[in-house]
Amino acid sequence: MSDTREGMLVTDETMTFEDQLVAVVDTVGLTDPAAEVAAWRRLDSLTKPPRSLGRLEELAARVARVQGTERPSVGRKAIVLAAADHGVVAEGVSAYPQDVTWQMVANFAGGGAAINALSRSVGSDVVVYDVGVARDISDIPGIEHRKVAFGTANMAQGPAMSREECAKAVLIGVETARELAERGYTLLGTGEMGIGNTTAAAALAAAFTGAEPETVVGRGTGVDDEGLLRKAEAVRRAIHVNHVAELDPLGVIAAVGGLEIAMLAGVMIGAAEESVCVVSDGFISGAAALCAVALCPAARDYIFPSHLSVEPGHAVVLAALELEPVLDLDLRLGEGTGAALAFALIDAACHMMSDMATFAEAGVSDAGE
Amino acid sequence: MSDTREGMLVTDETMTFEDQLVAVVDTVGLTDPAAEVAAWRRLDSLTKPPRSLGRLEELAARVARVQGTERPSVGRKAIVLAAADHGVVAEGVSAYPQDVTWQMVANFAGGGAAINALSRSVGSDVVVYDVGVARDISDIPGIEHRKVAFGTANMAQGPAMSREECAKAVLIGVETARELAERGYTLLGTGEMGIGNTTAAAALAAAFTGAEPETVVGRGTGVDDEGLLRKAEAVRRAIHVNHVAELDPLGVIAAVGGLEIAMLAGVMIGAAEESVCVVSDGFISGAAALCAVALCPAARDYIFPSHLSVEPGHAVVLAALELEPVLDLDLRLGEGTGAALAFALIDAACHMMSDMATFAEAGVSDAGE
Repeated sequence: MSDTREGMLVTDETMTFEDQLVAVVDTVGLTDPAAEVAAWRRLDSLTKPPRSLGRLEELAARVARVQGTERPSVGRKAIVLAAADHGVVAEGVSAYPQDVTWQMVANFAGGGAAINALSRSVGSDVVVYDVGVARDISDIPGIEHRKVAFGTANMAQGPAMSREECAKAVLIGVETARELAERGYTLLGTGEMGIGNTTAAAALAAAFTGAEPETVVGRGTGVDDEGLLRKAEAVRRAIHVNHVAELDPLGVIAAVGGLEIAMLAGVMIGAAEESVCVVSDGFISGAAALCAVALCPAARDYIFPSHLSVEPGHAVVLAALELEPVLDLDLRLGEGTGAALAFALIDAACHMMSDMATFAEAGVSDAGE
Repeated sequence: MSDTREGMLVTDETMTFEDQLVAVVDTVGLTDPAAEVAAWRRLDSLTKPPRSLGRLEELAARVARVQGTERPSVGRKAIVLAAADHGVVAEGVSAYPQDVTWQMVANFAGGGAAINALSRSVGSDVVVYDVGVARDISDIPGIEHRKVAFGTANMAQGPAMSREECAKAVLIGVETARELAERGYTLLGTGEMGIGNTTAAAALAAAFTGAEPETVVGRGTGVDDEGLLRKAEAVRRAIHVNHVAELDPLGVIAAVGGLEIAMLAGVMIGAAEESVCVVSDGFISGAAALCAVALCPAARDYIFPSHLSVEPGHAVVLAALELEPVLDLDLRLGEGTGAALAFALIDAACHMMSDMATFAEAGVSDAGE
């Protein structure tokens, strides 16, 4: 099955992954403003004071715009969970050992992680991808084995990936979104696992927004004050040694990103290509959204941020994207947990659009009647 | 069926409703702090960095405390939607005509309102009660007909209800919670419909917290600036003419409350009696929570506020209760819509407690290993 997909991925063996990615980006269209206008007209005709469902109405209108209909709906839902390791852990940036990445992948496959529990509670599937775990885990069943490399290199000393590795990881994400859309999934969420990846996300946030490293690093899974200083220093060195200011978007992601982050950026671009809403989780998914929009500006309107993470860099990322989360629950776990919770709100917003009666249908008097 | 229930309600015909209510309040026990301690121990053993699921973990620990187990669960869920009319509409405090109350009750019964749509999306039932609609709607099927009066009197001129009417409405709520608990419902939410009821809620908030009327009135379903001034003035007069400062809790609720608000206070007391979590919706449900806690202080720990309403009085009410909402979505509809959305979060919190593996079970290394 992996071979078939590899065949789908390399559509033309004479093309580099980078050229294929450029071709994909060209196919992403804009969302439908007329559907959003129609959605607001419908929202104002439903039996409730106008706009009294606040952010839920805004969600409904945005989903309508993506799906191109005033009656949007949610069918099958999936969290795409991408896992990979990070060479930057050599800088002492994480409270947990690197082995936790593959151990947690096994936990996802076994159904015992937080994302499994939360997905079940909202009726979502979880699909787990190894795109860069630092250990051979091809014997773990129940996951998609698409390893691009055995982890990234240490970005504090040079590029984390080559451009071709990075483009390949993005394309795996694009292909995943296409495949899920073909199988009837109409709502995707992004999740990740990778010890060290809040440092990569911080580096991407600093590189794409110009923020100072100190303002975008946080405690991740729980580093102490010294660990926090080491993270800021690692980000600063990564930006310096890789001459990030001189790079194009793909170059930035290759230099200071991660394989799972690149894949999730691809999931967002692929979802946009398929006119499917994609819900980003926390800080690392937010960094992936920055990457997606840098590579493909049209993708932005298909992205729904779920929650505001405790990680300080997340607010910086969301401000740069001009996107507002719907939840604020002090989450800092990742895995797609916040995205799964937001699925429930998007589901509710779509039920509102399809199941509610209008004033006329219900025979209810409108204001001032 | 109504007769049987009336029989259940009047347990002793020699007792007044007020005496019966006093007897009920005495049966409400405290929540279980040991279960909460055990829940936190379990939460910290699950495969995630400690406390990384933030508010979701706090929710789980509170539910554990109510249910008396470290593995809380959600079974059947219901929104109890109480409807009643308000004499204070004579003061010009609402943007909608009073007929909207009964028309919306018909809409709830027909399944076309926002609460029907949102409840479906989270797998909840809706049970609708007429405890005080100003019109004979006994011919509308699919609702519970428990009318105490044809609306309240105008509180700006005298008491909204007699003490006995008020106690009766509270007891109907107690009995409803008991009956739902017996039928296997383990999560209740409160919703309401009643043109004019943000004015009653504001009067209760002012009476119980001492807040100035101007700080607790809002635009409700959408009154203009003059309507807002009329609301503040109606609240001020209601508090003055009823000598609210000299009244006991039941007297306050009878003077400036509403029949649906009294019933919802009873639902909260009844849920506490049954050790069932009860999720309050917005401002009016928050006012009902104030009433419940004033009548029965032990009920407070069974109440879970769902969202922060746009109505300015809601923050005042929640601060007085020392309870924090989990959602902030600019909602101002009522009906229990915010409570239904919060059901999804409580469901997720319980799934987390029962479905997740511990570090030991999953063979995942803990921090520093």
